[in-house]
Formats: sequence, C-alpha cells, structure tokens
Amino acid sequence: MDAPDPFQSAPDETHTEIMHATYAALRKHGYADLTIQRIGAEFPKSKSLIYQHYDGKDELLVAFLEFLLERLEADVPTDGFSDAREHLQELLDHSLPESPESDHTEFMSTVTELRAQAAHDDAYREQFTRTDDFFREHIADIVRRGIEQGVFRDVNPEQTAAFIATTIYGAQNQRATTNSDDPILAARRELEEYVRIRLSAAESET
Amino acid sequence: MDAPDPFQSAPDETHTEIMHATYAALRKHGYADLTIQRIGAEFPKSKSLIYQHYDGKDELLVAFLEFLLERLEADVPTDGFSDAREHLQELLDHSLPESPESDHTEFMSTVTELRAQAAHDDAYREQFTRTDDFFREHIADIVRRGIEQGVFRDVNPEQTAAFIATTIYGAQNQRATTNSDDPILAARRELEEYVRIRLSAAESET
Repeated sequence: MDAPDPFQSAPDETHTEIMHATYAALRKHGYADLTIQRIGAEFPKSKSLIYQHYDGKDELLVAFLEFLLERLEADVPTDGFSDAREHLQELLDHSLPESPESDHTEFMSTVTELRAQAAHDDAYREQFTRTDDFFREHIADIVRRGIEQGVFRDVNPEQTAAFIATTIYGAQNQRATTNSDDPILAARRELEEYVRIRLSAAESET
Repeated sequence: MDAPDPFQSAPDETHTEIMHATYAALRKHGYADLTIQRIGAEFPKSKSLIYQHYDGKDELLVAFLEFLLERLEADVPTDGFSDAREHLQELLDHSLPESPESDHTEFMSTVTELRAQAAHDDAYREQFTRTDDFFREHIADIVRRGIEQGVFRDVNPEQTAAFIATTIYGAQNQRATTNSDDPILAARRELEEYVRIRLSAAESET
C-alpha cells in the first residue's frame, strides 16, 4: 500500500487525537452520557480508526484516564527550585490557584468526574492510587529537602505530605462540585498558615 | 376504593422504599449504569409506583440526592457536648473513622459518586453547595464556642472551619477512590496535630 495509512504512519498522532476527542466529548456530555458515537463526533478522522485502536468505550476510557493522569503528573512543578519553601508555594499556586483559568477548572472538573468512577471500577482505582502516591511522594520530597536545608522544622515528611495532598484534593473537589469559591480560598489561606506555623523553621505560633 | 392504596395511605413509606431501592441499585451498578429498571429490581412493590412518584430517572435521582444529604446532615454529631474540643474530636471520629464500618464506607462512596455529577449538573451542584455550607458552618460554630470557652485560641472560625472541612472531604474522597488507607490515616493524624497546634489554647508549638 503506497498511500499513507494514518494508523500505521502516525499512531501517536491518532492516539492523541482520539484522546482530545474523548476529552471534548466528556466536557460536553459528562461521563454518564458519554458514548463512542459522541467521541466520534469530536474526532476529525474516520470513526473506524477509534475501533481500530480500542475494543470499546471501557477500554478507550481506561487509556484516556492514563493519558489525563500522565498530563496531570507532568504538569506538577518539579524543577528549578533551590529553596524548598518556594517549591512548596509554587505547588500550592499550581494545584489551587486563587483565580483559576477556565482551562484549569475544566481539566480538574474532568479529573473529578473520572476519579468518582474509581468508587466502582478497580482499573480507575489503581490509576488514582498510583497518581496520589506520586503527588504525595513529590510533596514529601520537598519537605525532606526543606528539612535538610534548615528552612523547615524536623517534621514527619510522609505525614505532612499526606495532609497537604489531602487538603488540596478536598479543595479541588469542592471547586469542581460547588458554586462558591470563598470557602476554597479560605481553606487555601489556612493551608498557607499551616505551612508557616507547622513547617517554617523561623516561625513560631504566638 | 376500600383497599388501601400504598401510594395514598403511606406516601412516606413508599418514598423511603424507593429511596432504599435507589441506594441498593447505585451500590450494585454505579451511577453511570443506573436505570429505572435496575432500581425497580430492588423495589419490593409494583414498579409502576416509581413512575407515579417520579417523572423519570433524573427527577428520582435529584430526590435521592436530597434524601442522602439529609441523612448525612442528620448524622453529624451536634448535641450533648459541653466541651468544644470533645465536640470537634467526635466530629473527626464520625467523619473520618480510623477503622470505618463497611456501611460507612459504602455510604461515603455513594456520596462521592453523586458529588462528581455536580461537575455537570446544576441541581446536584446546588445541593452540595448547601450541604457543604451546613457542614462548614457547623464546624465554625464549634470553633466559636471553643473560643468563648477559652479552650481554643482566638482564630478566624470561618477560615479554620473551611480548612478542616476541606481536609475531611479530601480524605473521604481518597478513601472512596484509592486502595491504600495509610495516607488517609496519616492525614487524619496530622489534622489532629493541626487542631492541637493551631487551636488548643493550652498548647504551643515547640
């Protein structure tokens, strides 16, 4: 066959396009009303390509979740911080921005919807367990470095990281599922107070 | 008509039975695969009664969400605490038990699944906003009373309550959607440390 077959010649590109179509369909219809038909409507190429790649909606969605969580993990700020306090602050700004862009809100809203499926689906549950482990371990590394640098107190890095990650998940979840942003901003301010009081070596509660 | 009509004679009982059938079907199939058919299979009376009460699945599920959140709110420990510290501790034990009963886990897992629908459904979003307001205000009341009693420091009750509620939501969400309980227990321990360091009037960070 001389003519290029998009599936053979650029599998990554087609895969990425299917993922983007899935994202667009999820945003438009929500998880409960998602169908291959609706994903196909967002896909610029022949719909048969979707079936060439995936056996059905369930298989496609597990691949999509992996794609989404890889992006989530890749976006976490990791490099270029000499000071652990700055690194942690940047992580809070990134995960829980005060004035989130609509892209961020939509992305986190989609993650929230998919996370809820883990209540019923072991494949989702495993993926979110892995992503949570990654995020929490990343925070624990920052805390450990801060202790080594002498800018953080000698706290338990794992316990501190579990707490910070949990608060961030709670705030992201509230942002995706409620109408008022004030309690989320208040929680964020108090999280910064916690970091100051509990972690910062130079501070003491008065 | 002499024979008792269950819909006329005991509307509350029928309503409650429909709600229990919905809960059982949700536990079994998950939100995305829920149908009136499947709810009917869990309902001990004639399925036509379900259609007499509700126009369809969407209307039934909004009523179910209200039923579920009323139970959630009614279960929050509110009375019989003279000491605000004890009251707050009881609230943490209740919301985030160290060894949750399977009933508790299933209930919170169902709440988690329904909460995620709020990412796409305004009726759900309003209900969860209201429930979150109730829970956060309840915590703020405890904090206010603790400050009056002199057992808590003079913190900002709203900000403190928003933070505690957010952490609890995050932990409940993780418990419903991941496989490992250790990070959740670690977050809970750190939440208790936070309460001790930030709130307790007698303590100071060393």
